[in-house]
Amino acid sequence: MRIKTRVTDMLGIEKPIIQAAMGWIARAPLSSAVSNAGGMGIIETSSGELDAIRGEIIKMRDLTDKPFGVNVAQAFIRDPGIIQFVIDQGVKFVTTSAGDPMKYTATLKAAGLTVFHVVPNLAGALRAVAAGVDGLIVEGGEGGGFKNPKDVASMVLIPLVCERVDIPVVAAGGIIDGRSMAAAFALGAEGVLMGTRILSSAESPVHENWKTAIVNAEATDTVFLNRKGPGPALRALRTERTTRLEEEGSPNIFGEFARTQDVYFGGDLEAGIALTGQVAGRITAVKPVAQVFADTMSEFEATLTRMTAVRA
Amino acid sequence: MRIKTRVTDMLGIEKPIIQAAMGWIARAPLSSAVSNAGGMGIIETSSGELDAIRGEIIKMRDLTDKPFGVNVAQAFIRDPGIIQFVIDQGVKFVTTSAGDPMKYTATLKAAGLTVFHVVPNLAGALRAVAAGVDGLIVEGGEGGGFKNPKDVASMVLIPLVCERVDIPVVAAGGIIDGRSMAAAFALGAEGVLMGTRILSSAESPVHENWKTAIVNAEATDTVFLNRKGPGPALRALRTERTTRLEEEGSPNIFGEFARTQDVYFGGDLEAGIALTGQVAGRITAVKPVAQVFADTMSEFEATLTRMTAVRA
Repeated sequence: MRIKTRVTDMLGIEKPIIQAAMGWIARAPLSSAVSNAGGMGIIETSSGELDAIRGEIIKMRDLTDKPFGVNVAQAFIRDPGIIQFVIDQGVKFVTTSAGDPMKYTATLKAAGLTVFHVVPNLAGALRAVAAGVDGLIVEGGEGGGFKNPKDVASMVLIPLVCERVDIPVVAAGGIIDGRSMAAAFALGAEGVLMGTRILSSAESPVHENWKTAIVNAEATDTVFLNRKGPGPALRALRTERTTRLEEEGSPNIFGEFARTQDVYFGGDLEAGIALTGQVAGRITAVKPVAQVFADTMSEFEATLTRMTAVRA
Repeated sequence: MRIKTRVTDMLGIEKPIIQAAMGWIARAPLSSAVSNAGGMGIIETSSGELDAIRGEIIKMRDLTDKPFGVNVAQAFIRDPGIIQFVIDQGVKFVTTSAGDPMKYTATLKAAGLTVFHVVPNLAGALRAVAAGVDGLIVEGGEGGGFKNPKDVASMVLIPLVCERVDIPVVAAGGIIDGRSMAAAFALGAEGVLMGTRILSSAESPVHENWKTAIVNAEATDTVFLNRKGPGPALRALRTERTTRLEEEGSPNIFGEFARTQDVYFGGDLEAGIALTGQVAGRITAVKPVAQVFADTMSEFEATLTRMTAVRA
């Protein structure tokens, strides 16, 4: 079975699955695995390590001949020269996030790129449409990562946006498999984005301790932090540290990320914050990306068959 | 088009739509409108006003010849005699909530009733299955009303439960129409529950001010209160009062409900807490229940057609 939507057409991908641009994690080894499996691999910039990222973008050419993209996490990039670098490298797809969609959309589109903007609510979606983006990534509050403090769940947010915009929508937050992808499509999405599911894949570079924690987590084992600011809110794995932050708050949420290398790659989950979505509660095994995507596609098909069977 | 699932079969209803047992609101005038429109009307007990409720159950016989049910909100009923009253009245369907499913399931089932238990997470679902209930109402955190403080969104919770239990699941939280019902079915549900959508229907007895506030609300216009207790957490409409409660907390959350009559039926939304789900942001008009249900069924059908069309 193949799925054809405006998202697969615009991005030139076989499967309507985009990988989340996870800071420090979404680099060439993992993102090329996603592209090679027929999805859209994305190189991150939210780490702010732009020198390293330039190298990762170049590496992608050796690791895949399939389409891939780059995320421009506007709040985290100190050197806007990265925009021209992405254009010069011949990257065809950019997602913009964490900033005003008016800032880079015209430049990127003038250079022939396809631009999707990441939004957490309807107001953001309408502003991105006004900026002229080609599509939206619409993130429900159940997803991991940096969040708008006024979170809205995918079941409400995805149809709300889809009913109000004409450009294609990619659903993010709560998606790990064929039945959740089918739900996103029912709500009006034409593609899905997976974060925690790919973060916990075999090809993911994160430490086994984090993957094991995701496999063992219940759906109630995430926390939503820093709703009152300052700085962004976020959803993360529940640990002793994040439970304390949930209780007491943090005067400087970015300070909690000082030892991210130790958390992500050293496996010390108490050394900082492990950004993780509620879907951790549904993930029961570490699987290769290609297996995740193949299972997703076949379960999507089975879900359509099951749904149509309810007609009496 | 008709939909046939284990939920429609077990409950003897034409449409797989159950009405939330909203305290003070889910009484004979509204619940009979739901039953007469082909759904499952439910009489509430969470108001604790059991004398009034006995009258409402009797009134239902005059207002509809279709099936209806009663919710037993265990934490709120001071007189367990209501159980025998429900049985004696020949009610065939009970939902139990806000308490241990072990408490009443055996009695109700021995009397021939069908019992669904309301749960907010997987652990609750498994306990209800062990108690022998016939089905589950699984409530995502985006829904309005009293909530588990560790909320899980429908997109994650519904498939998590459906994959682990063999009894039918009714999805609650985020459902107002055919596309959200189709999403719930994709996730594995065989029926849906609507609260805020029916609360804001033409037949709902609540004050026009509340209905208008729902029609005008954005999806970000609810608050999640009292996550740290004491007492239950809840999701409600954002007002000046609830914004203050979100900031400052409340030492006695039940005290905030002292003037509920003024809020619900007097229209003074600042006199207490108006329990409301995130779907308020998707509701743009007050409609009769029969119209809501008819639109839902036809949009469900259209959604299936749209979804199957993505196959290349």
